[in-house]
Amino acid sequence: MRVYLDNNATTMLDPEAYEAMKPFLTEKYGNPNSLHQFGSETHPALRGALDELYTAINAKDSDDIIITSCATESNNWVIKSTYFDKIATGEKSRIITTAVEHPAIAATCQFLKNFGVKLTILDVNEEGLITPEQLREAMGDDVALVSVMLANNETGMIFPIKELAKIAHEWGAPFHTDAVQALGKIPVNVQDLDVDFLSFSAHKFHGPKGIGGLYIKDSQKLSPLLHGGEHMGGRRSGTLDVAGIVGMARALTMSNKFLDFENSHVRRLRDKLENALLEIDDVSVVGSKDRRVPNTILASIKGVEGEAMLWDLNRAGIAASTGSACASEALESNPIMEAIGADKDLAHTALRLSLSRFNTEEEIDYAIGEIKKAVKRLRAISSTFAH
Amino acid sequence: MRVYLDNNATTMLDPEAYEAMKPFLTEKYGNPNSLHQFGSETHPALRGALDELYTAINAKDSDDIIITSCATESNNWVIKSTYFDKIATGEKSRIITTAVEHPAIAATCQFLKNFGVKLTILDVNEEGLITPEQLREAMGDDVALVSVMLANNETGMIFPIKELAKIAHEWGAPFHTDAVQALGKIPVNVQDLDVDFLSFSAHKFHGPKGIGGLYIKDSQKLSPLLHGGEHMGGRRSGTLDVAGIVGMARALTMSNKFLDFENSHVRRLRDKLENALLEIDDVSVVGSKDRRVPNTILASIKGVEGEAMLWDLNRAGIAASTGSACASEALESNPIMEAIGADKDLAHTALRLSLSRFNTEEEIDYAIGEIKKAVKRLRAISSTFAH
Ligand SMILES: Cc1ncc(COP(=O)(O)O)c(C=O)c1O
Ligand SMILES: Cc1ncc(COP(=O)(O)O)c(C=O)c1O
Repeated sequence: MRVYLDNNATTMLDPEAYEAMKPFLTEKYGNPNSLHQFGSETHPALRGALDELYTAINAKDSDDIIITSCATESNNWVIKSTYFDKIATGEKSRIITTAVEHPAIAATCQFLKNFGVKLTILDVNEEGLITPEQLREAMGDDVALVSVMLANNETGMIFPIKELAKIAHEWGAPFHTDAVQALGKIPVNVQDLDVDFLSFSAHKFHGPKGIGGLYIKDSQKLSPLLHGGEHMGGRRSGTLDVAGIVGMARALTMSNKFLDFENSHVRRLRDKLENALLEIDDVSVVGSKDRRVPNTILASIKGVEGEAMLWDLNRAGIAASTGSACASEALESNPIMEAIGADKDLAHTALRLSLSRFNTEEEIDYAIGEIKKAVKRLRAISSTFAH
Repeated sequence: MRVYLDNNATTMLDPEAYEAMKPFLTEKYGNPNSLHQFGSETHPALRGALDELYTAINAKDSDDIIITSCATESNNWVIKSTYFDKIATGEKSRIITTAVEHPAIAATCQFLKNFGVKLTILDVNEEGLITPEQLREAMGDDVALVSVMLANNETGMIFPIKELAKIAHEWGAPFHTDAVQALGKIPVNVQDLDVDFLSFSAHKFHGPKGIGGLYIKDSQKLSPLLHGGEHMGGRRSGTLDVAGIVGMARALTMSNKFLDFENSHVRRLRDKLENALLEIDDVSVVGSKDRRVPNTILASIKGVEGEAMLWDLNRAGIAASTGSACASEALESNPIMEAIGADKDLAHTALRLSLSRFNTEEEIDYAIGEIKKAVKRLRAISSTFAH
């Protein structure tokens, strides 16, 4: 059996999204900016896709949703253009973010530190969250931007974005949220959240890879990261990937249709898996279930090295992760575990299981059996686990 | 009949490239960075694709080819990271480029002027080219980067990159070339050209849209434009679009297989079309045929507004352009025509015809007939053309 439980790293392309893409990978290859039928025949689908995206996150007509190549681009864009527009100009000097942001935020901020950007990195509590009070204390009128993720990629924990954005706005600072791990899993309503910028990546909600977006409230100023021609109203240049855009929009619409299903069926399977894990001795899971997106478990299994666990599971056909896909090449301890204050040993025992609506109960039952077997085998040979 | 003569804007996806992509749009959706079989089963194709790309441009093992989302990204990357690495640090101050670069270079440079970058923009001659002597005179030890395109998107004219790079290197300045309009049309050999950076975009050589690359000689320093995790050795983050990469590599390999065909068959069709155009009174074409890529014609047809021509051709099923796709939304005069010193009237009569190996002789014969008809009709109603 093959069981894919690594949906926070990437997801299967929704067959309906692929179907929608096909004409644009074959006969409809024109550049939508061109003044001929090969170009204009892509317009209805392109407009339709943008409409779908606006609807999916409840954006207003006066807002922008700018297509990018991924959330990494969207995140770099917000941070770097904040640097150019507000900080290099001397208007403001500081960016506030958290200790558990994705590297696309964290590394970008670190890079800009070399160019005079001041950083405030808010520590997280044992659930991996920050509180509104923490942000309130950190604010000041030197703040150019606050950037806090909507849901964490490792823990699935949901941040109180609406309250946080309100605090930033009290100080006149724009608020960005990396919503990569939230879209398609929980309802995301930009008007309700009242954020200024919101990043997303299609392949995290069963869309194609290589396409994402940035929501910009009220078409406000943000210098391009990719300068060039007139694409996307001059905000993001590069020939439009119509197939990708159409696939992304269809995938998000489909995921949103399944939000109730995600919150019932996927949540039930996740909880079943989590409860089975917690039945094992010395296993803990980060964060309370009801404050998490419905598909994610970040467990720590004492005495069981995360990597070793992955290999055992992989042999059984089960795909999981020790942490974010980006970090997994480095074979390091889970950075979120460290951020929430787990000791080094525990951080090395992280196991992230992330489901999707394509998982079946049979798969979960199989995974439970295999995880239990693996824990038993690995603890038996563990030097750190007291038998 | 439908005849696509706008291949410098974008191209049809090669059916073989699409075939190669399909597994990665369906069952093989894993993130190659993941430590499980869903990830690792993408490795052979990914490695194969990167090998294909290295071979296609004759890059060395010690070089890097970093996958980006498009040439716009590659171009922005080189220019902006030159700013961060060399200019913001105070080491150097100037970038040299030409008056006919793509907006992804030109607009990026203009943006950075606001942040202290000094620009030298070399004027082009009546063929749309610069000479090595011009660059030699412009050089100085304050130069952080020289960026000159390999082939122009409007005229198809080929710049003397090897000589230009040599001059930049005499001053210790790195050399970048935007090779978007050269790859897949003429042989491109990075070792022979001896450039430091080279940009390309898959959809210009029958690859998919939304994917491109940047060649970096000898893995030299260039700070990321997209910071984040460990992807691509930390040089360009964002989850890899394996389907896109595989499609791009296959498309380039296929295009390179057809280089002789391009230089014989496509060139012959292009010349046939061009000669037929030149038989019409008061038509001129920019640049000598043998110094151009084999597929491009930039004509000016006195008394015939470019836009009007496009509409007539479009009614006949023929796709052409008045200039770069990026500029075409703006309905402006052709910027290259202006740069080479054509008067405003003439710049408004630009017609760009760009062929590909998928065009047939029948299509070209049909296009010749339709263009002649359109010229006749439009000149008859023209206020500026003396009958
Ligand atoms: C929270 C978060 N932000 C950003 C990203 C980056 O997404 P992409 O790799 O599609 O650019 C990821 C993916 O790992 C993520 O989980
Ligand atoms: C010379 C040149 N450079 C760069 C680009 C940008 O390519 P893309 O739109 O794929 O980013 C183009 C495309 O119009 C081009 O012709």
